[in-house]
Amino acid sequence: MKNKFRDLEPMLKPKSVAIIGVSRDPNKVGNIIFQNYVNAGYSGKLYLVNKNAEEINGIKVYKSITEIKQSIDLVVIAIPAPFVPDVVEECGKAKAKSIVVVSGGFAEVGEVALQQKMVDIANKYNIPLLGPNCLGVMDPRSRIDTLFLPTYKISRSSIGGVSFVAQSGAVGSTILDLISGEGFGLSKFISYGNAAQVDEIDILNYLMHDDETKVVVMYLEGIKRGKEFIELAKTITKIKPVVVLKAGRTQAGASAAKSHTASLAGSYEAHEAVFRQFGFTIANDLSELLYYAKIFASEPMPKGPNISVITDGGGTGVLTADAIGSSQHMKLGTFSDEVAKKLRKLMPILVNIRNPLDLAGDADSKRYSDAILTLKDDKNIDMLVVIALFQTPGADSRLAAELIKIKQESEKPMIVISMGSQYTTMHKIMMESGGIPVYDSPSSAISSLSALYDYYEFKKGNNYI
Amino acid sequence: MKNKFRDLEPMLKPKSVAIIGVSRDPNKVGNIIFQNYVNAGYSGKLYLVNKNAEEINGIKVYKSITEIKQSIDLVVIAIPAPFVPDVVEECGKAKAKSIVVVSGGFAEVGEVALQQKMVDIANKYNIPLLGPNCLGVMDPRSRIDTLFLPTYKISRSSIGGVSFVAQSGAVGSTILDLISGEGFGLSKFISYGNAAQVDEIDILNYLMHDDETKVVVMYLEGIKRGKEFIELAKTITKIKPVVVLKAGRTQAGASAAKSHTASLAGSYEAHEAVFRQFGFTIANDLSELLYYAKIFASEPMPKGPNISVITDGGGTGVLTADAIGSSQHMKLGTFSDEVAKKLRKLMPILVNIRNPLDLAGDADSKRYSDAILTLKDDKNIDMLVVIALFQTPGADSRLAAELIKIKQESEKPMIVISMGSQYTTMHKIMMESGGIPVYDSPSSAISSLSALYDYYEFKKGNNYI
Repeated sequence: MKNKFRDLEPMLKPKSVAIIGVSRDPNKVGNIIFQNYVNAGYSGKLYLVNKNAEEINGIKVYKSITEIKQSIDLVVIAIPAPFVPDVVEECGKAKAKSIVVVSGGFAEVGEVALQQKMVDIANKYNIPLLGPNCLGVMDPRSRIDTLFLPTYKISRSSIGGVSFVAQSGAVGSTILDLISGEGFGLSKFISYGNAAQVDEIDILNYLMHDDETKVVVMYLEGIKRGKEFIELAKTITKIKPVVVLKAGRTQAGASAAKSHTASLAGSYEAHEAVFRQFGFTIANDLSELLYYAKIFASEPMPKGPNISVITDGGGTGVLTADAIGSSQHMKLGTFSDEVAKKLRKLMPILVNIRNPLDLAGDADSKRYSDAILTLKDDKNIDMLVVIALFQTPGADSRLAAELIKIKQESEKPMIVISMGSQYTTMHKIMMESGGIPVYDSPSSAISSLSALYDYYEFKKGNNYI
Repeated sequence: MKNKFRDLEPMLKPKSVAIIGVSRDPNKVGNIIFQNYVNAGYSGKLYLVNKNAEEINGIKVYKSITEIKQSIDLVVIAIPAPFVPDVVEECGKAKAKSIVVVSGGFAEVGEVALQQKMVDIANKYNIPLLGPNCLGVMDPRSRIDTLFLPTYKISRSSIGGVSFVAQSGAVGSTILDLISGEGFGLSKFISYGNAAQVDEIDILNYLMHDDETKVVVMYLEGIKRGKEFIELAKTITKIKPVVVLKAGRTQAGASAAKSHTASLAGSYEAHEAVFRQFGFTIANDLSELLYYAKIFASEPMPKGPNISVITDGGGTGVLTADAIGSSQHMKLGTFSDEVAKKLRKLMPILVNIRNPLDLAGDADSKRYSDAILTLKDDKNIDMLVVIALFQTPGADSRLAAELIKIKQESEKPMIVISMGSQYTTMHKIMMESGGIPVYDSPSSAISSLSALYDYYEFKKGNNYI
């Protein structure tokens, strides 16, 4: 495998980093990257390079990378495009182990020859080069962060199991911001822009072998090495789930993609067929990408398709039953006699013992807990959907805390649906941080459970995807 | 029309209100309703009724409504179900003009006879009765608020043009909370629960004639008077848009709806056919209900289906082009030669003059403003979609302020897509309050524009719905 794929370890776990193009101006890209290293608490060696400066923030600045005379795992390049090939040449001479080029101004604006010149030099020295026209990489474990976006604009995620791969910087940064806002954690973030050299194949191969990555989530505009992609696709989903959003599904989108990252989007139908055959989970929108990422990151394998819905709002229970009814494989389970009897004793007389179980608008954390702890042992129920509407009088922080406690003991997939503004958002973040995937509509919740189920059926040999 | 439909004016614009079942306990339903009247600043006459109290919060408490001896427009009843019929009888004797029964414990738990007894009494006195098992009504203009949900749990909306009708209290309160969180305003909120007497027909008829209502948004579990509904449906969409979410689409959902509000959901296909024939906008989920409500509340009629996309993130532009490409009637417009020339002069050389117009990751409010002000006069462009990713370096509060300014001068529909966490949310609320509908994904934005276009085409005689 080593020969076919470029080694991204020095890029994601660097012991030393050089930033080329650091400026004194705090609004310049190079300076923001430097500040983010400081903010992230990167503890490896950090070198700054700028032809026109001697010192920035009290740190020595080198004229050229060749002056450093130390081993450098990663070079981040943030200078105007025309100067990049010469600097890559210097990186080669300095025996740098990997390069991220964040600068734009290459193939995406027609400068194909300039881009090729840069790649040829990197290839000559056998250095993996990410970009150009990209945000680069982030890894909250190694505290590497090449993003040129200030932290007040885009929150950084906590440590977790989701690795996110995006060709587009904007899509990538949006997703990164959403992930951190939702409170679930990140393993790796890789934005690879024009994919001039390192491409989705190298990245997928790296993430497949990366134990810190539990689920791979990809935004793709095009695939360059189709044969290698299929070869990888055969293997990766046997090891971990891969969620993919492919842009350029339509003619309008494909044509826009060509202008954006100089990608040939290819036939969407052909891509989709490959994704389905090899058990990729297909997202149709950015929000679906996020929904699926978080369910794969936290939930165990469901034993079957039977869902129990527990709710403090009847109408939302009905809508969730509809979402289950419209899904291809999900089922509304029937409580076993034993469990139904137990629930009848525990619940107030106004509560009908049926699925969805409507605990009524005055339900408190005790009633939720009685219901869920009973249902989680029902052999007829494989997955739990808890609707917690914090608008009702009995739902408060005690309910959120109780659900987190139950979740930690649950061996079945268990997710929550909560919808609302401030008061609800506070509790959503609390529950997400406590390890519960929280959804903002019945349809997103059920389609996520369905994606989870379909993936594990695929692994068993039943391809439902 | 008067004879067929019950008059809801005294319920929504009451000059005097009596609350029956007010308690000293601040957590009891009757007390929360009373507190909400105080909070809302209701300025009409307010009477409290409780058999067992003489005074609450320094206000005189009557033993019975018959003791008040004043004209009462609205009676809110919040006492246990078995006592309700006798109190309705007293309301009749006191010549009350309308009743809202928030108490549960009627047909939804099998107490059909008790419910019928209550309705018979209301009918005898010809009093419109809303509920039981409902949240009741809210109108930020008349400051009426019968909801028994505390304001810290569920924010109250500002004054606006959206009237929201829900059979389910939980769905209603969730939507109300979401509406207020999004920052767009409400005309009326009506939660009618079991629909024992006043039903969707009465409510629709009232809202059709209500000038404060610009768009009607409904969550339905079942329709009881089919013939009258069809008669109304023929008329209402000629006057204003109606967005409908019908629960019980599937067998699972229909069966849950029956248990919830004792509704017979009927065949969804039959309902859908009626909705389509008469130009209702069909939502498939709670989130769609909200997306469509806000576009109808703020946007003018589009002259045609041609969209221009302006973005600071290429990838999000591609996904939006895909959403347009997959929609039935929306088109990605081609800039007129004149506009293209003007843009070429105004934009930096790295910006390709094509649709989607990718302003690049360093776009600031000036570049946005140059682009949008040029495009809004293009005869080839009917609608504007502005993607503002606040994660990029140049996008900040100046951009939000500039977009609000441009929006106020735009005669074409113009919406924004912004996705992200805290920093973005702040700007989303700012823009929503400034009159711009903001969407959190390309697909929700485009499907909303499509709903807007289809409705106005329906009004012109082209039924695309």
